[in-house]
Parts: sequence; structure tokens; C-alpha cells
Amino acid sequence: MRTEMRLTGSGGQGLILAGIIFAEAALLDGNNSLQSQSYGPEARGGASKAEVIISKEEIDFPKVQIPNVLLSLTQVACDKYSAEIADDGIMIIDETVTVEDVKESVTLYRVPILKTASEVIGKSIVANIIAIGFITEMTGLVSKKNVETAVFSRIPKGTEDLNKRALEQGYQLAAALK
Amino acid sequence: MRTEMRLTGSGGQGLILAGIIFAEAALLDGNNSLQSQSYGPEARGGASKAEVIISKEEIDFPKVQIPNVLLSLTQVACDKYSAEIADDGIMIIDETVTVEDVKESVTLYRVPILKTASEVIGKSIVANIIAIGFITEMTGLVSKKNVETAVFSRIPKGTEDLNKRALEQGYQLAAALK
Repeated sequence: MRTEMRLTGSGGQGLILAGIIFAEAALLDGNNSLQSQSYGPEARGGASKAEVIISKEEIDFPKVQIPNVLLSLTQVACDKYSAEIADDGIMIIDETVTVEDVKESVTLYRVPILKTASEVIGKSIVANIIAIGFITEMTGLVSKKNVETAVFSRIPKGTEDLNKRALEQGYQLAAALK
Repeated sequence: MRTEMRLTGSGGQGLILAGIIFAEAALLDGNNSLQSQSYGPEARGGASKAEVIISKEEIDFPKVQIPNVLLSLTQVACDKYSAEIADDGIMIIDETVTVEDVKESVTLYRVPILKTASEVIGKSIVANIIAIGFITEMTGLVSKKNVETAVFSRIPKGTEDLNKRALEQGYQLAAALK
């Protein structure tokens, strides 16, 4: 079993950190994982992506080929990456984003991630943590216990409460859609 | 031209961040780059590694095969990774680390990175930034201008002076050995 995740949005949304947190949580769960981000002509275009591979087995081929889970927090990123997703994949887009021509077999969730960050938590910077909570609750790819450990090991001291609330908002957004 | 870099040490030394900074600086220099870290049985053993590939061309094979530049900040990491280095590679180890059986064709630098962080700068947490400065000055793989931009885009606000000093200490340590 190998799961590929692609987290897309704009630079500054903390998606690399989100990828690192997923990869660390997967390790704590007893899986292997690989987190990467590539920088090239595409990174100059305004869409940023971070990728995570989680597997019970050793990860031989270290590149995401066709993601099982795709997150897009911006329209630019969604337009660029929405075509590449597994037939039974899960696509999560922010509610400010629209997408057409999604395969029927793909499960699409349109979620107020950015709005929840800015209006409920009051800090737009935690959108990545809300997204982590949403994906964790919705997919079960990593355990809540270990995702929390991974979040707390990576955030600045003094922001624990803020990030805990963000994570729980993400869980709730997902639980409401299940 | 493709250069592979492997940054090794213990968790908490900020080597993933160092990898991200190198990859971003390489992008700003007009190159392609890929930064990755894998988590698996090896990550449980106390040695952490982050990898960066920098290339003028598109990066087809996204895995470091045999690094051209190897950094080891701890003995455990050095023992684990020192055997894998290109024949004309550059190996940089902290002065607290010892290594035997290095190929004669490899250039070895033993540098007081950790001590400079704790005693000169007064913050052991900036060892990664000192290492970035050292590697930048010694190899010219990324430009100083863009490595500084990348550092400043990734560090917490209010720590600019500290990190600028750390970077400059790294430059100086390398300049003294050239």
C-alpha cells in the first residue's frame, strides 16, 4: 500500500511544513514516508506544491506519479494540478476555488479552509494546519495522535493553543462532511 | 550539470530547513532544484538527513544517488553516511566528529560549526545557518545574494541579525580554509 499526496497552493501558505508534518506523523505511525518539493520553472509561476508519499514498504520510486489525495488552496494551483489525480482519489479544494471536469469517480470536497483560518481562528497563517486536520480526519492516512505530536514538534513555541484549535477546526470540517 | 547534496546530523539541527533554503536559493539563481527527506527505519536510528539536488536541466531522477557534497554534524550521522560520496566530493564534518577511510580524492573539511554556533553566536540553533554559509562560500553552488534572500524568507521575524551573523561566520570559516 502506497499513498501519494500532493499539497498545492501559493508560496507562504505553509504547504512544505504541512508535508513535513504528514511525513513525520506517518513515521510515528510506523510507516515509511518521503516528503519533497521541487523548484523549477513551475515554481516561478505562482503555484507551489509539496508532496508526500506514505507506504508500509520501502519507498523505491521517490516521485509522486498520480496523487491519491490532492489539496488545492488557490485557483492557480487547482487549475495547474487538478487534472492529475487517481481515479478513486480525494480532491480537497478551498471554497474560494472552482473546478470543472472532475472525473465522477473522484471524491471532491470544497471546504472553507482559508475562511476558517482568518475568521474562526483569526490567523490566516494556520490554514495549513486546518488542512492537515481535515485530511487526517477524512482519510485516516495518519493517526490523530501522531499528527498532533508532529504538529507540536514543528510549530513555534507559544503557538500550541492556536494550532491545536486549527487542527480541531479541520477535524470538525471533515467530520461534518462524512 | 547536476549536483547532489546530503545534509546529515540529528533531528532538531534544522537540516530540513537548510535543504529548503539551498533549494530556494538555487531556484532564485535560475536553476532547478529538488529538496527531499525520507523517513523510515533509518530515521528511527538517530541520524537525520535532508537532500538537495541542483541542476541546470530538469531533474528526471529525483533521488540522491551519490552526493557531491556531504555534511555531517554528528558522529552517528557521519558513521552512517560517510561511505557514500562522489570520488571528487566535498565532505564537511563538524570538528567534534572523526572519520577514517576517506578516499584520497575526497576533499575533507573538519570545521567548528557547532562550537561557533554556541560560543561565537551564542545560539546552538543557528548551526544549520553557519553550515549553509560554509557550503555556499566553499562550493559556490548557490550565490550569496540568493542564499541570503532564501534564509531571510524562512526564519522567524526578529532573528534576522542573528542569522546574518551566523551566515557570515560560515562564510569566514570557509574563506579561511580556501
